[in-house]
Amino acid sequence: MVGSCRKCENCSVDLENYCPRQIPTYSGYSLDGTLTFGGYSDMMVSDEHFVVCWPKNLSMDTAPLLCAGITTYSPLKYFGLDKPGMHIGVVGLGGLGHMAVKFAKAFGTKVTVISTSANKKQEAIEHFGADSFLISRDPDQMKAAMNTLDGVIDTVSVVHPILPLLMLMKSHGKLVMVGAPEKPVEFPVFPLLMGRKLVAGSCIGGMKETQEMLDFASKHNITPDIEVVPMDYVNTALERLLKSDMKYRFVLDNGNTLNKK
Amino acid sequence: MVGSCRKCENCSVDLENYCPRQIPTYSGYSLDGTLTFGGYSDMMVSDEHFVVCWPKNLSMDTAPLLCAGITTYSPLKYFGLDKPGMHIGVVGLGGLGHMAVKFAKAFGTKVTVISTSANKKQEAIEHFGADSFLISRDPDQMKAAMNTLDGVIDTVSVVHPILPLLMLMKSHGKLVMVGAPEKPVEFPVFPLLMGRKLVAGSCIGGMKETQEMLDFASKHNITPDIEVVPMDYVNTALERLLKSDMKYRFVLDNGNTLNKK
Repeated sequence: MVGSCRKCENCSVDLENYCPRQIPTYSGYSLDGTLTFGGYSDMMVSDEHFVVCWPKNLSMDTAPLLCAGITTYSPLKYFGLDKPGMHIGVVGLGGLGHMAVKFAKAFGTKVTVISTSANKKQEAIEHFGADSFLISRDPDQMKAAMNTLDGVIDTVSVVHPILPLLMLMKSHGKLVMVGAPEKPVEFPVFPLLMGRKLVAGSCIGGMKETQEMLDFASKHNITPDIEVVPMDYVNTALERLLKSDMKYRFVLDNGNTLNKK
Repeated sequence: MVGSCRKCENCSVDLENYCPRQIPTYSGYSLDGTLTFGGYSDMMVSDEHFVVCWPKNLSMDTAPLLCAGITTYSPLKYFGLDKPGMHIGVVGLGGLGHMAVKFAKAFGTKVTVISTSANKKQEAIEHFGADSFLISRDPDQMKAAMNTLDGVIDTVSVVHPILPLLMLMKSHGKLVMVGAPEKPVEFPVFPLLMGRKLVAGSCIGGMKETQEMLDFASKHNITPDIEVVPMDYVNTALERLLKSDMKYRFVLDNGNTLNKK
């Protein structure tokens, strides 16, 4: 995000990310009509309101904090899923999911990673410090974990069953989707009613909260797991991205490689 | 509700209505294994915890406060949709919907009734004091009202489109379903994400909040619109109920008519 109207109901309460006239960092149009190139440039001009102060102890390689970081930090805060002792589920352990685990652990919550296969179990627990791991395709495991979670951050952007996730939550549980499946989601209403549960969405964060997230990450030494690649690797990186073959975010080193062949 | 476990996480915070061992007023089983007959009796024995103090200025004919009243009062409070100046939508003007309008107006919010047809427009505005009326099948009306509501109480229990209701809400809007359609609901996730909106459910209220609702109704003179009928009319009443032929709740006068042929 590099711009917004600065006047609407959302902008006036530091929620520029929900401004209907938000200008995306790339493939958007600036106020003067020029296209924004965002991450695919080695320099850019921006309104100072949309620039953050980067903490000294975080290297620029931690750039994914600006997307995966704030995307998971913001809903944990807004929906009150940041209270020590709570039990939080994180669906999908990818670019967004691994950041959700790190922030949820830093908030002092117990974290369960929910994934379709056991592939990432060891990494989730030993490397990221998750407290437990559930295989969503194992009905016995899912049944045994019913009514245990206070909230779920669902990072999966392909269509997937919602009801089993609703059943994992206690009464008043909050399921927040931060990935957008292309097709509609579908679930029965009765479990929502009987437990006053909710299904919500959340999209990055405002500039004020983004700075707050960076400062929190700095203090708690929270950084994304990344692979730094040169600009001429970008097409290979995109191919690997489609195969989910990376841990857990690529960082394109534009500054050192964009104009240096 | 005539009983609950009194020990669980929900019972311990006055949310007996979400206790997994809640005992329904009828067709439930008491702790001693006997069937509960609830509303179809002229007397009953109950644990005092599940008895409310009926305000002196409300006649017993206002009994639907205990279901339609608390079912709509509770989500307006819990989801913070009770702040003066807010704009609340009420979908469906029936037994639940007309109470939602009355409570929302008493909280000082602006109320829009949303219905499939114009049949109830005059009644909604002139009799119940709604501020406006939207016909959900009129795309032009619905489009003109986009991004105007802070929250919606959806009382409709047949399957109906959710996306148009999501679009009526501003960012951070809350759509609370209090009716349970038999089939799953379906909606795209993207509008949830882009506006941090949520879809939730809610089911009656705890005993403490039920008393609070009654006292509020007493103070603001909020009563359901009813038709009192004798017990031997019950089958006719059920037939009329299926045809939505009543305004807006039947009250069976058991005390005067159950044992008097």
